[in-house]
Amino acid sequence: MALAYDGAIQNLIDAFSRLPGIGPKGAQRIAFYLLGASDDEAQALADAISEVKAKVRFCEVCGNVCETSPCPVCMDPRRDRTVICVVEEPRDVMSIERTREFRGLYHVLGGAINPMANVGPADLRIPQLLERLKDGTVTEIILALDPNIEGEATSTYLGRLLGPLGVKVTRLASGLPVGSDLEYADEITLGRALAGRREV
Amino acid sequence: MALAYDGAIQNLIDAFSRLPGIGPKGAQRIAFYLLGASDDEAQALADAISEVKAKVRFCEVCGNVCETSPCPVCMDPRRDRTVICVVEEPRDVMSIERTREFRGLYHVLGGAINPMANVGPADLRIPQLLERLKDGTVTEIILALDPNIEGEATSTYLGRLLGPLGVKVTRLASGLPVGSDLEYADEITLGRALAGRREV
Repeated sequence: MALAYDGAIQNLIDAFSRLPGIGPKGAQRIAFYLLGASDDEAQALADAISEVKAKVRFCEVCGNVCETSPCPVCMDPRRDRTVICVVEEPRDVMSIERTREFRGLYHVLGGAINPMANVGPADLRIPQLLERLKDGTVTEIILALDPNIEGEATSTYLGRLLGPLGVKVTRLASGLPVGSDLEYADEITLGRALAGRREV
Repeated sequence: MALAYDGAIQNLIDAFSRLPGIGPKGAQRIAFYLLGASDDEAQALADAISEVKAKVRFCEVCGNVCETSPCPVCMDPRRDRTVICVVEEPRDVMSIERTREFRGLYHVLGGAINPMANVGPADLRIPQLLERLKDGTVTEIILALDPNIEGEATSTYLGRLLGPLGVKVTRLASGLPVGSDLEYADEITLGRALAGRREV
């Protein structure tokens, strides 16, 4: 017996190992779980993978993932068409939807400017965003990028690009996360919370 | 827009969430990774899942997973047929094979006695083990069960069951793991290491 599993099991372990957040031990655990699972459950997972690749598209307007293009948000007549919230990834759309605080439209950039990973402005969906501003409907752009170096750089870049077009450009507030301890806040976050203080 | 993803994406997230060691956030991360991956990579994962369920069987002799039954270990004429190493799960066979210290046969119980999970001796492959002892070829049974409460209970049970049959029953040594610090060893492990001390 070789020191690896038989063909099909090793193939499955290898395939799971390539997914983000799953190491070789985790992949082995999942493979043996699937071996013990019912045929229906295993087939449901295989089908879900095939189906998502077959059905899911990117919305031609906002760049979010969807099964119809334009997506339901872009097509919804009840959404406020004067505000566009710019996010990095499709999953960020869902995070903002869950707040129930935003009723405008979205624009997914597909990443953030990151010179270390060779991602520049030309790799993002910035021309498509400019295109959406042309008819003058949009009056505010909310930049909801990740509060890290790449997100900040992209916000700064977009702020300079969009400012001269006469559209209001805002960004998410920095500050203390709700439910956290002041004692454990890092000094940059606390400094921003102080600078952005509001009257009660 | 509902506060969940469109059908196919949510199905995929749900399917991955059911796997061991993957939470909802990890499942979402994997789903979006697969959305961005090439069709070939995603299809390879789906195919690997279907294939493992179609091809992989349990060896009728030892209970290990294999693509042919009896498995390559049970069929190998170079293996020592007088020793059987009893393990809980198929993955334990691979762990022992990797040591390159064992050239006998295996027997996979399919678990350990665990009253909390309603697993009793009748749920394990114990009759099949007794069957293998009948022709008198086997002279030693090595119990290589997990060194936890369930594994110890199963070892004790098997020791009492197999002892009267005139076969030598041994178990893996308890002691300090190689590369560890004596200082950090728990008292039970250290006690066992002391009790099992060997002449140098």
